[in-house]
Amino acid sequence: MLTKNDAQAKPHDRLATYLSADMTAVGTLIAERMASEHAPRIPEVTAHLVGAGGKRLRPMLTLAAARLCGYNGPYHVHLAATVEFIHTATLLHDDVVDESRQRRGRPTANLLWDNQSSVLVGDYLFARSFQLMTEPGSMRVMKILSNAAATIAEGEVLQLTAANNLATDESIYLQVVRGKTAALFSAATEVGGVIADAPEDRVKALFAYGDALGIAFQIADDLLDYRGDAGSTGKNIGDDFREGKLTLPVIKAVAQANAQERAFWARTIEKGQQDEADLDQALTLMDKHGTLDATESDARAWADKAKSALSPLPEHELKETLADLADYVVSRLS
Amino acid sequence: MLTKNDAQAKPHDRLATYLSADMTAVGTLIAERMASEHAPRIPEVTAHLVGAGGKRLRPMLTLAAARLCGYNGPYHVHLAATVEFIHTATLLHDDVVDESRQRRGRPTANLLWDNQSSVLVGDYLFARSFQLMTEPGSMRVMKILSNAAATIAEGEVLQLTAANNLATDESIYLQVVRGKTAALFSAATEVGGVIADAPEDRVKALFAYGDALGIAFQIADDLLDYRGDAGSTGKNIGDDFREGKLTLPVIKAVAQANAQERAFWARTIEKGQQDEADLDQALTLMDKHGTLDATESDARAWADKAKSALSPLPEHELKETLADLADYVVSRLS
Repeated sequence: MLTKNDAQAKPHDRLATYLSADMTAVGTLIAERMASEHAPRIPEVTAHLVGAGGKRLRPMLTLAAARLCGYNGPYHVHLAATVEFIHTATLLHDDVVDESRQRRGRPTANLLWDNQSSVLVGDYLFARSFQLMTEPGSMRVMKILSNAAATIAEGEVLQLTAANNLATDESIYLQVVRGKTAALFSAATEVGGVIADAPEDRVKALFAYGDALGIAFQIADDLLDYRGDAGSTGKNIGDDFREGKLTLPVIKAVAQANAQERAFWARTIEKGQQDEADLDQALTLMDKHGTLDATESDARAWADKAKSALSPLPEHELKETLADLADYVVSRLS
Repeated sequence: MLTKNDAQAKPHDRLATYLSADMTAVGTLIAERMASEHAPRIPEVTAHLVGAGGKRLRPMLTLAAARLCGYNGPYHVHLAATVEFIHTATLLHDDVVDESRQRRGRPTANLLWDNQSSVLVGDYLFARSFQLMTEPGSMRVMKILSNAAATIAEGEVLQLTAANNLATDESIYLQVVRGKTAALFSAATEVGGVIADAPEDRVKALFAYGDALGIAFQIADDLLDYRGDAGSTGKNIGDDFREGKLTLPVIKAVAQANAQERAFWARTIEKGQQDEADLDQALTLMDKHGTLDATESDARAWADKAKSALSPLPEHELKETLADLADYVVSRLS
């Protein structure tokens, strides 16, 4: 049971406390499976990223979903490690695609080694994740996770082509967000229910929770890029704007733009021609049309949707923690 | 049955003739599964590579293995498409890693689009291959193919770190070759036997055939880079030397080098300091130690091993064609 202090802790930390034995097993399995007899570069690159921490939210979602449905193991550990491997492989490839130089406060692998190592070690981790996911012997689990991997890659490609295109609307944005973030969240929670052999309504509930949580999480992230987070994110305000990324606050502003405003967005986002004063002007336009507040409302609505989705699940302290997690994801916004 | 003309045709063409209905089904499945509802960039990039032809040897090996073991479908088609998707994904990533500009006589995808598209579309095809391989519902097939994907990535990483290192010996070379080439050949033939529910000795024979054929194929390719192939490969003699790649003819020459020769290899391969006359000097040293002939003997020995491996398989015209294919792979060498 949770103590009073535990109950006041951040939901993420409460999950980590509740699941600490399982997470130790996940960590052991990850260390074991990222090894390579022949190519020491593989564990070096992987350890750099895995060792940098990260909240390991996705594997905890799998473990929490399985435990909440009464599962006693051992395969939730394999599935949690699978999910973390897919996530890590995606990060390695994302940093190559975005030419990133920092991740989790450390230089990226593509900077420390090279793009080649990041591409190939990412491929190795994808392959390892597929080996891991076969071990529980559940066809349904394999279909869910391989579908998620395809949706993630599709979302990334869509983002690549949609990024600087003013025709990108809210429905395309939602597809990108489902791909880049929500697909792995929803697969993580769904397979937890499936491995526990939970009734169909609970499996569906877990999927819907992960999907809505992932969308809330990504919209919040995109909003914080313009609003900041009292210095706790380490991101600079306006990074997405400078990279010409069309995220929800800008998409909403473009949709309401007059001709002059549209020309501003076309120059700064589509053509990437920006000067120092343009970020302020962008913020002024978003303020004029109230798009930061509207984006916040969307994030909160998805967080509420995540909480409602949990209703078919049995009463359990993990259920309360998952509900609090949905609130927490958007709590940074006010 | 084969006609007399068919029997004189190249073994690869005889396979294509025998398997033409199956290969049409594979082509249809590939076209269907490379589509993307949301990201048209995916089929564009994939079609560029798939449309450039390529011999589709790997999917034919799966189909031939399955048919040779009496399988009547339909899942050999899924597995053949899986193998081709893994191969295509690998090519897309290889071209990024090697910064290649040409593939199958056309500009590479990374040149026509960008590295980002090649990385992400490759990821999509990997994910698609895993979706496809789940469809026959055979755990063993999934383990074989996911293991192969891990071995391929591991071999590529090993190649990256071993490429310019004079300490690379024949056993490391063999690991790299098994990874980059033979792992997918042997998985392609093995899953053909598994899906046909062939007896264990035949499955093992198919694995051994694919492994030895892949090794013979790669050694021959590496040898032709120094010997040329009467203009039919389209590769320039000495490309591997200029890129500082340690392949078998050079590894054998380094192993027998005196101090002066070792200094030559250290300068040209490890440090990459080369001038115009160095390729001739490299060829002179390989000639002195007979390493091109020794490499040819190795390739022929692996081709013979591939043929011998076939003996547990039933008499069948496909068996003869596979044996002829092993001979054909090394026939370009003399």
